[in-house]
Amino acid sequence: MLDYQAPLRDMQFILEELADLAAIGELPGCEDASADLVSAVLEEAGKFATGVLAPLNQAGDQQGCRLEGERVIAPDGWQAAYDQFRDAGWIGLSLPPEHGGQGLPKLVSTPVWEMWFAANMAFAMLPQLNVGQTEALMIAASEAQKATWLGKIVSGEWAATMNLTEPQAGSDLAATRMRAEPEGEDAYRLFGQKIFISYGEHELTPNIVHLVLARLPDAPPGVKGLSLFLVPKYLLDDQGEPGEKNDIRCIAIEHKMGIHGSPTCTLSYGDEGGALGYLVGEPHQGLATMFVMMNEARFNVGTQGLALGERAYQAALAYAKERVQGRDIISGEAGKPIIHHPDVKRMLVSMRARLMAMRGLLYTAAGWFDLARHATDTDVADKYRRYVDLLMPVAKGWCTEVGNDLCDEAIQVFGGMGFVEETGIAQLFRDARVITIYEGTTGIQANDLLGRKILRENGATLRELVADIRETATQLGAHERLGDLAVALHDQATLLDETADWLLAHKADTAELYAGAVPLLHLLGIACGAWQMARMALAAEARQEKGDDGVEYLQNLIELARFYMATQAPQARAHGHTLRHAGTVLSRFDTGAL
Amino acid sequence: MLDYQAPLRDMQFILEELADLAAIGELPGCEDASADLVSAVLEEAGKFATGVLAPLNQAGDQQGCRLEGERVIAPDGWQAAYDQFRDAGWIGLSLPPEHGGQGLPKLVSTPVWEMWFAANMAFAMLPQLNVGQTEALMIAASEAQKATWLGKIVSGEWAATMNLTEPQAGSDLAATRMRAEPEGEDAYRLFGQKIFISYGEHELTPNIVHLVLARLPDAPPGVKGLSLFLVPKYLLDDQGEPGEKNDIRCIAIEHKMGIHGSPTCTLSYGDEGGALGYLVGEPHQGLATMFVMMNEARFNVGTQGLALGERAYQAALAYAKERVQGRDIISGEAGKPIIHHPDVKRMLVSMRARLMAMRGLLYTAAGWFDLARHATDTDVADKYRRYVDLLMPVAKGWCTEVGNDLCDEAIQVFGGMGFVEETGIAQLFRDARVITIYEGTTGIQANDLLGRKILRENGATLRELVADIRETATQLGAHERLGDLAVALHDQATLLDETADWLLAHKADTAELYAGAVPLLHLLGIACGAWQMARMALAAEARQEKGDDGVEYLQNLIELARFYMATQAPQARAHGHTLRHAGTVLSRFDTGAL
Repeated sequence: MLDYQAPLRDMQFILEELADLAAIGELPGCEDASADLVSAVLEEAGKFATGVLAPLNQAGDQQGCRLEGERVIAPDGWQAAYDQFRDAGWIGLSLPPEHGGQGLPKLVSTPVWEMWFAANMAFAMLPQLNVGQTEALMIAASEAQKATWLGKIVSGEWAATMNLTEPQAGSDLAATRMRAEPEGEDAYRLFGQKIFISYGEHELTPNIVHLVLARLPDAPPGVKGLSLFLVPKYLLDDQGEPGEKNDIRCIAIEHKMGIHGSPTCTLSYGDEGGALGYLVGEPHQGLATMFVMMNEARFNVGTQGLALGERAYQAALAYAKERVQGRDIISGEAGKPIIHHPDVKRMLVSMRARLMAMRGLLYTAAGWFDLARHATDTDVADKYRRYVDLLMPVAKGWCTEVGNDLCDEAIQVFGGMGFVEETGIAQLFRDARVITIYEGTTGIQANDLLGRKILRENGATLRELVADIRETATQLGAHERLGDLAVALHDQATLLDETADWLLAHKADTAELYAGAVPLLHLLGIACGAWQMARMALAAEARQEKGDDGVEYLQNLIELARFYMATQAPQARAHGHTLRHAGTVLSRFDTGAL
Repeated sequence: MLDYQAPLRDMQFILEELADLAAIGELPGCEDASADLVSAVLEEAGKFATGVLAPLNQAGDQQGCRLEGERVIAPDGWQAAYDQFRDAGWIGLSLPPEHGGQGLPKLVSTPVWEMWFAANMAFAMLPQLNVGQTEALMIAASEAQKATWLGKIVSGEWAATMNLTEPQAGSDLAATRMRAEPEGEDAYRLFGQKIFISYGEHELTPNIVHLVLARLPDAPPGVKGLSLFLVPKYLLDDQGEPGEKNDIRCIAIEHKMGIHGSPTCTLSYGDEGGALGYLVGEPHQGLATMFVMMNEARFNVGTQGLALGERAYQAALAYAKERVQGRDIISGEAGKPIIHHPDVKRMLVSMRARLMAMRGLLYTAAGWFDLARHATDTDVADKYRRYVDLLMPVAKGWCTEVGNDLCDEAIQVFGGMGFVEETGIAQLFRDARVITIYEGTTGIQANDLLGRKILRENGATLRELVADIRETATQLGAHERLGDLAVALHDQATLLDETADWLLAHKADTAELYAGAVPLLHLLGIACGAWQMARMALAAEARQEKGDDGVEYLQNLIELARFYMATQAPQARAHGHTLRHAGTVLSRFDTGAL
């Protein structure tokens, strides 16, 4: 079984130095987020992740969920862990105080969710659904609906789901067929089938609240005809408690490559007269609500990439320090652990470099969410809202791709022991494979980045971001010892500017441009990672100048930034070349010849 | 279930145009390999792969092997398929005629093994062991041993294994502990445990012949004290038929992430007095025999990368042509299959480009094996033996890494359906994960490439190879329509020369150099792939000039080469940058800070 320890020192460093926790804690509504409180929260969460969730991860994978009739049985231990998790109040950490949450900023909940995903992703997907559903209901639900449902969702007394996908409507929600027919004044009867519903059925909570995309009888075709419905597993009685069973049944669960502990359900609505549901928000506005939630959802999945990568790194590092094999390449000495082999060391340092880049980007972006929501200066709020919009497809697409790469590399460190299931590293690799797919594939993230986020506004926000990156490069240049990093970061900024120029100059060549969307996403991900690594090096240098006693830790952060520039930055240049040259070849290519 | 059709047209094109089948067929001992015979062999093999092996692949994965006491039970259908495979004589295809094989050149058996691995890798590992063992016995066994054992191994009447790994001796064979004690004149008693033994036990054949690395009582320490023993599961009686059971037992099989149909056994030797075995070759020379086999073994695993990639590509292509989702990005038209989305098309073309590059490299290298073995001009034979030596770590390391990437990309094309096991694509991804590990990890291939194959001879063979690549680039330059490819290939040659210069200039900086070994391997793999794509474009152009009627096919091969240059070639440059810059950072890095 793999251990997991929350990397508190790295988390704290990035929270304080890159994401400016102190400034976030001064925003109106965020005042509870004092340094002391945040430390205490992280420490408690770390203990819970290590002590309760991590030990269940492998058993949950091996046992999986099972369908008995229409019942879905979670793995052993899931119920007790959920009860503890709920009772400790973790679900409401960043949720609205008026519904029982603690209202901490996203910056604080982000490292905490990183821990849950790292410790046991299949489990953590369950309470994450409560967070997502709360956000949706806060956006679109009526006050009466909020009063009825939100308290139980925020506390975790009831579970939540999102029902979007249908067999013919995966990435393409326009193809949604589920229909909703009016039933009396406030209610609707829903009919149809939804697939790939995470935790669509289980018995861990006395009720499950489904949010379901469906079409009203008068709905226009396509995505403009989608409405959002709240459909509980059990209808509420007069006391607001779960009563009669609704007309929903789980007819299958998927046999997946990973996340075996998380039941992926096919739900059939309305086989016996229609499932009773309630319209959330205006008719035909379901997708708008989904869109508002989308940045949050993407951010969370990006965090899963970081989290699984961190767990894989910890496992690989522990194995590499322990496994004795071969001779020292210089001294010829035998009996040394494999971490002394240059290639194994390379893999581990490379993993850690990318972890810190991802963590830097995600935590910084978490702070942007908070600034966008709470900053009193509307220019500031607006700037960071635009940054969030621009970079969420990157945070999702890039961090999930890198997360997969890290799990892959961890197996490589384990060698043959990585391919056998008992060591547990194979599970991370299998679990991670879903994250570049769900909440929109990497290709869909990339198309969104290119089309909606860059071309539509002629690259305005991207240029603003590049100016910020150049500012960091200039700051680096002021430190004699960091001159090489300044050069490397300026080069990334130049690459971004050249890329923006090229994109705008070729705006009309749609097919060619979109053939380069994924290379563009990687390019931007790597460059934003380089920016964070550079900021990290700056902060580490400043702390050293102030006489911080963690010299070795700080100096290694600077070297880590250098390693990132030597290994990742050139990949960004390669993606830039591909972006500019592959599209024309591709558009000449006849798919019939494949 | 996934279909598989051998890509006969591509195979034939590369055999004829890149690997010069006609010339190989004129070598002494290779005269049977006429164009007609080769076509017939490939066609028959294709039918067998599609009709017999491919349909068992998914069921074999789902059912797996099981251990009952000391018995290992193969998946349903394995026995019948093996009987057919053996009876059809496929095992002896390229094996010595004097022992019942057909003696066809490696160039001919290579596409055939590609088919077996693509159709059902877990199954094909079994007969592949007979091929490897035949090669070992041909090198080192006495004439009497050959007469006793080889006929049954070549025909497949008996199965074969290789026993190298022990718990403390994975990549490091010097740590081997298994001991062999003399017993009478010719025999030895073996004691110890071997792990990770593919097909170490099963009942598909009436006997299993193990080749086992062990130490004699007077063995010097380390790899110079390893001897090779032949240890049968059943000792032979006076008629040479399996008689008394030997003192070997299977005490466990691994629960692996993939290749579930292939039992990976822990074998215990000598629990009841010692397993009777026979020394093969001279005492303490076991590793030398292994080394001679190593290029073949690496080549085979490289072919697995190509094969799994091809199967994954075919599946992804079929799915992309069938799955309707989203709107055409230009026309806005609905109801189109996803292959029309630029990013999906990009993934498929990228997969096909890398498949053709790998196939070009592997078939060309197969021809080099034949030239090295059969060419009457000793300079020619010597040149291609050196090419094989130089490039086998690349063929193994690069093709297995790319094979994994292709299986990963195929899942991405499938989206959510790629993550559920029923579609079968997840199995390919899981199966492929072992190939960058067994027969030496990518890191070990890379160290071999850098140390033994480049530095030790001051890059002499590498320079010779670069001259051949430049010659191809010059030929491209003579065709007006291929000028862009000439430029791109010259650039790769220049990169290789610059890399060689740099490596030799830094020969003394061992730790820094070896930190760049894997980037070097990728660089060389991509550049050799570029060379093959360029040769393919040249041949396609020549065929068009000669009026070949497959214009569309040929023109698309040229575009495929261009796509490769636009997407892969810049990655080689990025690896070159990493090679030159990452090592110094890494050698400053204190592993204690990880």
